[in-house]
Amino acid sequence: MRDAFDALFAPASVALVGASDDASRIGGRPLRYLREAGFKGRVLPVNPKRETVQGLPAYASIAALPEVPDTAILALPAAATLQAVEECAARGVRSAVIFSAGFAETGAEGEALQARLTATARAAGMRLLGPNCLGVFNPALGYYGTFSVILDREMIHPGPVGIVSQSGAYGAHIAHLARARGLGISQWITTGNEADIDVAEALNHMVRQPDTKVVMAYAEGVRDRDLFIEALETARQMHKPIVFMKTGRSAVGAAAAASHTAALAGSDRVFDAVLRQYGVHRAATTAEQIDVAYAAASGRFPAGDRVGIFTMSGGFGIQLADDLEAAGLDVAPMPEDAQKELLDLLPYASPRNPVDATAQAVSDLNVLKACVRTMMERGGYDAFTAILGTGPGSKTYADPLREALMQALAGHEGSIRALTMSAPVEAQRRYEADGFLVYEDGSALAHSLGALARFRDAFDRPASAPAPMEPLPLPQGPLSEAGAKALLKQAGIQFPAEHLAPDAEAAVQAAGALGYPVVVKICSPDIAHKTEIGGVAVNLKDAAAVRQATAEILARARAKAPGARIEGVLVAPMVPGGVEVIVGVTRDPVLGPVVMAGLGGIFVEVLKDVTFRAAPFDVPEAHRMLREIRGYALLEGVRGAEPADIDALARLLSDLSRFAAAHRDGVVGIDLNPVRVLPKGQGVIALDALIELEAP
Amino acid sequence: MRDAFDALFAPASVALVGASDDASRIGGRPLRYLREAGFKGRVLPVNPKRETVQGLPAYASIAALPEVPDTAILALPAAATLQAVEECAARGVRSAVIFSAGFAETGAEGEALQARLTATARAAGMRLLGPNCLGVFNPALGYYGTFSVILDREMIHPGPVGIVSQSGAYGAHIAHLARARGLGISQWITTGNEADIDVAEALNHMVRQPDTKVVMAYAEGVRDRDLFIEALETARQMHKPIVFMKTGRSAVGAAAAASHTAALAGSDRVFDAVLRQYGVHRAATTAEQIDVAYAAASGRFPAGDRVGIFTMSGGFGIQLADDLEAAGLDVAPMPEDAQKELLDLLPYASPRNPVDATAQAVSDLNVLKACVRTMMERGGYDAFTAILGTGPGSKTYADPLREALMQALAGHEGSIRALTMSAPVEAQRRYEADGFLVYEDGSALAHSLGALARFRDAFDRPASAPAPMEPLPLPQGPLSEAGAKALLKQAGIQFPAEHLAPDAEAAVQAAGALGYPVVVKICSPDIAHKTEIGGVAVNLKDAAAVRQATAEILARARAKAPGARIEGVLVAPMVPGGVEVIVGVTRDPVLGPVVMAGLGGIFVEVLKDVTFRAAPFDVPEAHRMLREIRGYALLEGVRGAEPADIDALARLLSDLSRFAAAHRDGVVGIDLNPVRVLPKGQGVIALDALIELEAP
Repeated sequence: MRDAFDALFAPASVALVGASDDASRIGGRPLRYLREAGFKGRVLPVNPKRETVQGLPAYASIAALPEVPDTAILALPAAATLQAVEECAARGVRSAVIFSAGFAETGAEGEALQARLTATARAAGMRLLGPNCLGVFNPALGYYGTFSVILDREMIHPGPVGIVSQSGAYGAHIAHLARARGLGISQWITTGNEADIDVAEALNHMVRQPDTKVVMAYAEGVRDRDLFIEALETARQMHKPIVFMKTGRSAVGAAAAASHTAALAGSDRVFDAVLRQYGVHRAATTAEQIDVAYAAASGRFPAGDRVGIFTMSGGFGIQLADDLEAAGLDVAPMPEDAQKELLDLLPYASPRNPVDATAQAVSDLNVLKACVRTMMERGGYDAFTAILGTGPGSKTYADPLREALMQALAGHEGSIRALTMSAPVEAQRRYEADGFLVYEDGSALAHSLGALARFRDAFDRPASAPAPMEPLPLPQGPLSEAGAKALLKQAGIQFPAEHLAPDAEAAVQAAGALGYPVVVKICSPDIAHKTEIGGVAVNLKDAAAVRQATAEILARARAKAPGARIEGVLVAPMVPGGVEVIVGVTRDPVLGPVVMAGLGGIFVEVLKDVTFRAAPFDVPEAHRMLREIRGYALLEGVRGAEPADIDALARLLSDLSRFAAAHRDGVVGIDLNPVRVLPKGQGVIALDALIELEAP
Repeated sequence: MRDAFDALFAPASVALVGASDDASRIGGRPLRYLREAGFKGRVLPVNPKRETVQGLPAYASIAALPEVPDTAILALPAAATLQAVEECAARGVRSAVIFSAGFAETGAEGEALQARLTATARAAGMRLLGPNCLGVFNPALGYYGTFSVILDREMIHPGPVGIVSQSGAYGAHIAHLARARGLGISQWITTGNEADIDVAEALNHMVRQPDTKVVMAYAEGVRDRDLFIEALETARQMHKPIVFMKTGRSAVGAAAAASHTAALAGSDRVFDAVLRQYGVHRAATTAEQIDVAYAAASGRFPAGDRVGIFTMSGGFGIQLADDLEAAGLDVAPMPEDAQKELLDLLPYASPRNPVDATAQAVSDLNVLKACVRTMMERGGYDAFTAILGTGPGSKTYADPLREALMQALAGHEGSIRALTMSAPVEAQRRYEADGFLVYEDGSALAHSLGALARFRDAFDRPASAPAPMEPLPLPQGPLSEAGAKALLKQAGIQFPAEHLAPDAEAAVQAAGALGYPVVVKICSPDIAHKTEIGGVAVNLKDAAAVRQATAEILARARAKAPGARIEGVLVAPMVPGGVEVIVGVTRDPVLGPVVMAGLGGIFVEVLKDVTFRAAPFDVPEAHRMLREIRGYALLEGVRGAEPADIDALARLLSDLSRFAAAHRDGVVGIDLNPVRVLPKGQGVIALDALIELEAP
């Protein structure tokens, strides 16, 4: 017996509760679609008021059904839904799809009602999709458990694209756009309010389907963080690109998302970084999402980044070169001698790359062939692109042009071939049948080729493999700086040699042992922001200065934070030089423990130049994380400065991520600010540490 | 008698030299188009081998023509073109269009041939378009002086879009896309190699045409800087948006552009900034260029930035809110009490903005009307947007839906109305006829609305009005720092009080007069980079230090730069505090004298965080320029720092731009690095100055 979740997509029998004889109504459409598509399973309409529905015998209730269906589609008002779910549960129905809105998205009352749906289903071992969703479909089986109007005029072809969407309308829209682009769909699921099945579980299912070569996803947020990350990593390891539309990136969008399907709003920047971490392409627009999915649906990726451009119009060639470079690809020039050969062939040509063969190549296809062949044999291009204009739309010229290209490219089947053209869709399909990617717009082509190259990079990486860390026993209550450092030292984080001194004399002694100059800082679990109460004195050069500063700091702490438990002062050496960075751990409401890193000072405050990763991650991932910082060059050394010990910083980030993951329940946040990255080979030192623990 | 340039677009008579009886050939197409379009002027084919061409009497030569045509279209090979131009000149033809390639874009020989075309035409007072271009057209007159294949199946309707393109293929492509979008074209011109008429002159013509409401332009570079800027500013003052595709932004693209129509390559960042300076929208993609031109073609702009979103699907509403915010618009919430009213109307709705009316508004158009009316009456929105999905494509629902919207929006005709829909093009056109902007994609809608708001900002600004500056007599030869400062002081630039001292004793005396600490710097017209030869000593605290430093600096200068003329040392006070910026003037190969500004130090070196403006400009423009710097917040004051004297910095930039413009022929470049922007009210001081003068 298959899993109840899988049965949602391939039921042997389906009950339609609230079935309508009117094929245009929500309770009528699924029946109409199932019949039009020739679904082979048993379809069981439930309608107490009718003998037949759209020609099929109807049943008065779920209890009256002649068999227990694999799935029940509930096309009922919100008020009638709970009872239907209870009846399904009582009957042993394995899964149910709930279309109706009017649950958690409407406020506390709806939320309570939705919680009862969930509880009823869970108690019975029944899976729920929705409420407030458009259902599922599986074109290969002709199974359409949806009332989406996009099927009004035309069904969907089976194909390589899996679609997972929280929003029903969005999921339907991209299915429609994919169909218009000639792309078939493997399976389609919309999760709506996610009373049970969420987008993370649906993604996990989708990426594992053998027919699915690429997944288009839409989400405003994610409920099950671990399952979500598992889905992304599984897709990466299976070399299945995910093209993601994540909304709610603006403040007003996030507010709307929170009130929509009642999804939690985390930080959009964190979500963005985590998608990057797992090699997912985040689309900025729906058009981009379709363009990239279209390119990825072939399951083929360029072996390298070198792209050749063949054009018969200089302007378009320049535009495509700009766009390809912006997409991170390499518009590498032809070798000098090959350029000379091209000029012998075509004296007016620009032979470098873009190879502009001018209008002469239009009129003489032998010239075009020779030109393209030279490009591919001599240019070493991983992708071939050509700008064909209206040629492929011409009745007399279309076939000879396509055949000339095919002949010229013979022997280079390993490279990606992508074209732009202004031609009717039938002409485009003929090129596609011959293995070409076809775009109307060069920018879309370039952007999509770039996405393919980045997918390849992500797929080529070994899995991030941070060594697991045994959880440490966490102390009770808040931690002082000394307490935080003692804990993090066990995770391998390096701090300066420093002493906790209860009073001025002990501080002087500690300073003497460390050597001058020193820093003296108040040490208390109850004082998180030391500078604000005057609790820090730097660059103390002798015993007298230490004695006086310590006395003053202790006095100020007692005066300004009267209830605080004072452990004493930390006496630490001044650490000169290095590049200042800040490192932290936060618990994102959606994506859980994440590590943040950025350059210190104005870079963080003015430019918000920070980056994130979901914990835990290994050292190579930490390096990729750091390279996302705009001011990364500062770590590599500018103005003749020595390069900083980036390796040590990457190790610190990975170690901190392992600590954060091991203590995800107990640790709310960590600040290491500042951290000094010393010159290469000399390591990294966190000067301060603050840990916020979960209140007991 | 009209201007010869204008005659290009509206000839009373046109000769087609190289006219072909084959309507598919380059020499045949213009004739076919002119006849199909019902051109009312006289068409005079020239072909020595035929009696008639496409049914019209043909003439054996230009000399044999029965009248002097306003314009001659030369559809001849490159080798035959010069002679034809000479014959036209001899006959007194007022303008000629040259289609053929094979001139300056092919190298030195072609360049020489092209120069002869230019010289011949100029001597005769004849205007030339091309060579290597696709010509002109003017649909209102049925005048098609082009062989572009986009006219093969369908002519162009007259309308609000003017097109100016260096690239013929690109110009044809956007004309085709505009037509497909339902946009008519006022006039169309492609300039190709620009032997005479360039894109700047064509733009100047186009923006002045009464029928032109918006201009789409394409260029790789610009030949006539002043004329170009005049065109941009004229368009701004006439409230005519220009939507610009500038290619060659990548290194490889710039190289290809240089070899294409032999256009000069300037800095893409400078070009970008100058377009912004004059309120031009630079499109990143062709699709964006069409989308923005489509929105702007109505000639209407939102009065403010507040946008209301009406949706029946939460997901799309969130996505549009994200996109509108990213486009700089304000998705302002409905007033609290109006939200309550909406909830009374629609209990499941999200009433904030986006207003998500849920599927209920689909089924009850009275609810939709009430909802939209409340939004417009209470929300104070400058633009109304709605996400309509497939509704407008439904046979039964389309008209009632459109009428419901029209009724709900009655009384708010001053606001912009923009919709997204998935519907056949005829349905879209009906909405457009009722004054709606229609997009298939919400991101494109949002981006275009944002562009309209920025056009409005640019159109609302008074013209930049820098006071003209009388050119100063420039000294001969290179200038020392003291010489540069003396010159710039006359332009109003502030420098520290400082003394030029020929030797150590004079330096000590100067330092005494200034007060310690001081800086001592080598002063020589032949030493541009003082630090590199150890020519600067800072923070000198007493006479002994000044004496020693001066002696050492003079000795080092003599040793390391033996031929240099040494004026002595500059003794200057240390200027503490302030925000460090760098300011400069460069002469862009395309756009001439431009002023650059950025934050100093790592901001420039690591982040390249600089911005540009074409000189001259006034103080408000300098403020806009400064606000483009990513680290601008540093000038406003961060970490509790005082705000810097941004007004003074803006004055300095404007003054420097006036100096740069007044001396554009003599001054190659200026560096003021560093400039200290002191706290608000205390001004700005340039610590160093370097001027490179044109070699005599």
